[in-house]
Amino acid sequence: MASFFRVFSLRNLLVLSLALNVSLIWRVLYEKEDSEAINGPSLDNKREAFRTDSMASEAQATQRTHLYIPSSSSSSSSSSSTVDSNGRDRVINLDHGDPTMYERYWQQTGDKSTIVIPGWQSMSYFSDAGSLCWFLEPEFAKEIIRLHKIVGNAVTEDRHIVVGTGSTQLYQAVLYALSPPDAAEPLSVVSAAPYYSSYPSITDCLKSGLYKWAGDAQSFSKEGPYIELVTSPNNPDGHVRQSVVNKSGGILVHDLAYYWPQYSPIAAAADHDIMLFTVSKSTGHAGMRIGWALVKDEEVAKKMVKYVELNTIGVSKDSQLRAAKVLQVATDGCKYPASEEGSLFDFAANVMEERWKLLRAAVRQSGLFTLPEFSPGLCRFLNSSFAPRPAFAWLKCEAPIEDCEAFLRSNKILTRGGKHFGVGPQYVRISMLDRDEIYDVFVQRLSTIHLRQSMQVDETVE
Amino acid sequence: MASFFRVFSLRNLLVLSLALNVSLIWRVLYEKEDSEAINGPSLDNKREAFRTDSMASEAQATQRTHLYIPSSSSSSSSSSSTVDSNGRDRVINLDHGDPTMYERYWQQTGDKSTIVIPGWQSMSYFSDAGSLCWFLEPEFAKEIIRLHKIVGNAVTEDRHIVVGTGSTQLYQAVLYALSPPDAAEPLSVVSAAPYYSSYPSITDCLKSGLYKWAGDAQSFSKEGPYIELVTSPNNPDGHVRQSVVNKSGGILVHDLAYYWPQYSPIAAAADHDIMLFTVSKSTGHAGMRIGWALVKDEEVAKKMVKYVELNTIGVSKDSQLRAAKVLQVATDGCKYPASEEGSLFDFAANVMEERWKLLRAAVRQSGLFTLPEFSPGLCRFLNSSFAPRPAFAWLKCEAPIEDCEAFLRSNKILTRGGKHFGVGPQYVRISMLDRDEIYDVFVQRLSTIHLRQSMQVDETVE
Repeated sequence: MASFFRVFSLRNLLVLSLALNVSLIWRVLYEKEDSEAINGPSLDNKREAFRTDSMASEAQATQRTHLYIPSSSSSSSSSSSTVDSNGRDRVINLDHGDPTMYERYWQQTGDKSTIVIPGWQSMSYFSDAGSLCWFLEPEFAKEIIRLHKIVGNAVTEDRHIVVGTGSTQLYQAVLYALSPPDAAEPLSVVSAAPYYSSYPSITDCLKSGLYKWAGDAQSFSKEGPYIELVTSPNNPDGHVRQSVVNKSGGILVHDLAYYWPQYSPIAAAADHDIMLFTVSKSTGHAGMRIGWALVKDEEVAKKMVKYVELNTIGVSKDSQLRAAKVLQVATDGCKYPASEEGSLFDFAANVMEERWKLLRAAVRQSGLFTLPEFSPGLCRFLNSSFAPRPAFAWLKCEAPIEDCEAFLRSNKILTRGGKHFGVGPQYVRISMLDRDEIYDVFVQRLSTIHLRQSMQVDETVE
Repeated sequence: MASFFRVFSLRNLLVLSLALNVSLIWRVLYEKEDSEAINGPSLDNKREAFRTDSMASEAQATQRTHLYIPSSSSSSSSSSSTVDSNGRDRVINLDHGDPTMYERYWQQTGDKSTIVIPGWQSMSYFSDAGSLCWFLEPEFAKEIIRLHKIVGNAVTEDRHIVVGTGSTQLYQAVLYALSPPDAAEPLSVVSAAPYYSSYPSITDCLKSGLYKWAGDAQSFSKEGPYIELVTSPNNPDGHVRQSVVNKSGGILVHDLAYYWPQYSPIAAAADHDIMLFTVSKSTGHAGMRIGWALVKDEEVAKKMVKYVELNTIGVSKDSQLRAAKVLQVATDGCKYPASEEGSLFDFAANVMEERWKLLRAAVRQSGLFTLPEFSPGLCRFLNSSFAPRPAFAWLKCEAPIEDCEAFLRSNKILTRGGKHFGVGPQYVRISMLDRDEIYDVFVQRLSTIHLRQSMQVDETVE
């Protein structure tokens, strides 16, 4: 009887235990599914999803005409590749510096760089009500300093950090901050040509009485105060720059968006009064619209904060939190380069090195173009010597081609012509930061362009 | 022997099964922990976390002086409550319309309103390269239309949607879009007093040659074209408004930031040429810096897009994705009001109703102030008749008090005085949207203010 009970109770226990097994297995499977619905797929799944997205993007792209058809897929949202209405030749749009090249690195970082924001977080206008820049997330400020310290590209000590909706907004904040409010005439704003194509239109779009675009710094001769914009490395031509005006009463603004080791050797930590940076070109997150300024003078920083307050009442907290996260991962990647994804700067430096090699080979093969030449320099961060590999190629069409932008457009390569940068039409600026598949088509096409067949400019391509 | 084997195998199976159970239970627990590390705590944990945060915030607040000490906690980032250096009376700051009142609702929505963005997503400048507003996330556009359709507060048919970094940026985009680029003199911009206090400073901050602040619309008599801003319900006084100038050559811009059922009965769908909205006042997400414009004329919409492009090269994608999520939850809450968290508008309407009751009781008790009176109206959305319960209280100090802002400041209540809104110092604007604990202290203090003790204005409180 005791044996019967023992067997019975064992059987019962076994049934109970097996039932629990089934229930727990179900729960493990179910929770995994549930967690993915919230978190997005796991790293491996994400890679797969990205491949599928890219293919979908490709498929959608082939449905587009050169006039663009809106697409609702975020993966196909970039404007860099379209095909003509016959579906034959792809139109390669490298007019903008859309930094989608970086997607590949951030995929590799997986969950490390994922941000989760509950609905009730970051609802206030204020990030840190007591600080000079009351809309700057303290977490983001901390990561900015960490990154500069490890890369060694800018001095952060005794600087105020002002965050902006991209460095574009900070550029305007600087103009507002530096212009005397009651001057008899607008302050002159200059930059050496070729200069960033948006400077003139941003500066003059509202016909401000405070400041006014005054063109090429090299020919600037007006007396009195002025602002000189020093973009270094320069957009569009990639050269490291110093100020050129050298008169009294000038205030320098350093746009250092490209002073990162993937583009240029980091010779020393920049130590200027006003320095502008952006995540768009450092980590590739253009869609965040986040930039930052390192500002020595407290009154200038305060007036910049005032401008951002008037212009947009602060800066997206969500993007600042996300920027803090990606900067943190970028810095950690430098500290622990042996990690699975490696360092952002190693990744980007390798891609840029390879792309510039391909570009120079294509240019040689075509025989129609020239590119700027750069001398190698020692990079204290990467601890090696190399020549700059800028984010843009500043391509010159040689004679008899007169209008380089039109010439390339006839080959379905969209670029930005020299006139936008204050120079002649023999130059174009070409983005080097697009996705691999776009860049590969571009460089392949550039190498095989024939002069005669291309001179019949196809005006239908916009 | 057979029986022995049966027992033995049953025992073995049981041990195996139990071992599996232990392993599965461990996995369930472990995965839960893991998932929380990524997702943040579950709903109940969040509530607990929030309570703890609030307490921490309270504790930090008691360490602050009236000059503000920076705080690095995001929960204590709001500027609405500080205490004096003796740690006795709390300084209540209701100068800004910081909508932290809404945190409580969004806590209740839990994971439904949580957004997860992997590091590699939304990196491009472009959201939808082919559409008129190329930086507008299609998902967000969809949710804007869904929300307006269910609330019935604005016509979305035949409108272009332009997204902005808050409606503040869109206001400037409108000015840019409506001003002729080559006019002999700047376009006049007017609004009936009391008008939104930031209109004059935003309009004139860059001394634009395109447009110029021309003051109170009621006294505007200049010939020629002009822009009239119609804020309805009005900030600061809560009244529903029509245009007042009524001359030829005028263009109306409707700022409908407060035309939501928690503040005002929705009598009909607004059907104006240019309408501005913002998440700050509709869902309470001021930190997102997201607004949208519904624009009838394509050319105006295109020029607005151009302004946002020049000013900030688009709008944070992260915040747009998050805005899409909270708008989706808000709309779903209207469709399924029986859900756990209920409807956002029911929640906010109840809070506002209660707060206005408390405020009117406090004002009656003090005998020193008056408030605007409103007539009830039918709300087609909430299907009931009620008087407006605006986002700001437009409080008037009665004689002998002359400077209402100074008088309240002496009682450690910070408000914004009438002169900022184009009227006299007997008025102040008080935010009704702060957190419960702040509002409760405010209304309690207002009810017990004594005239004589307060007339000694404490100038140390800023």
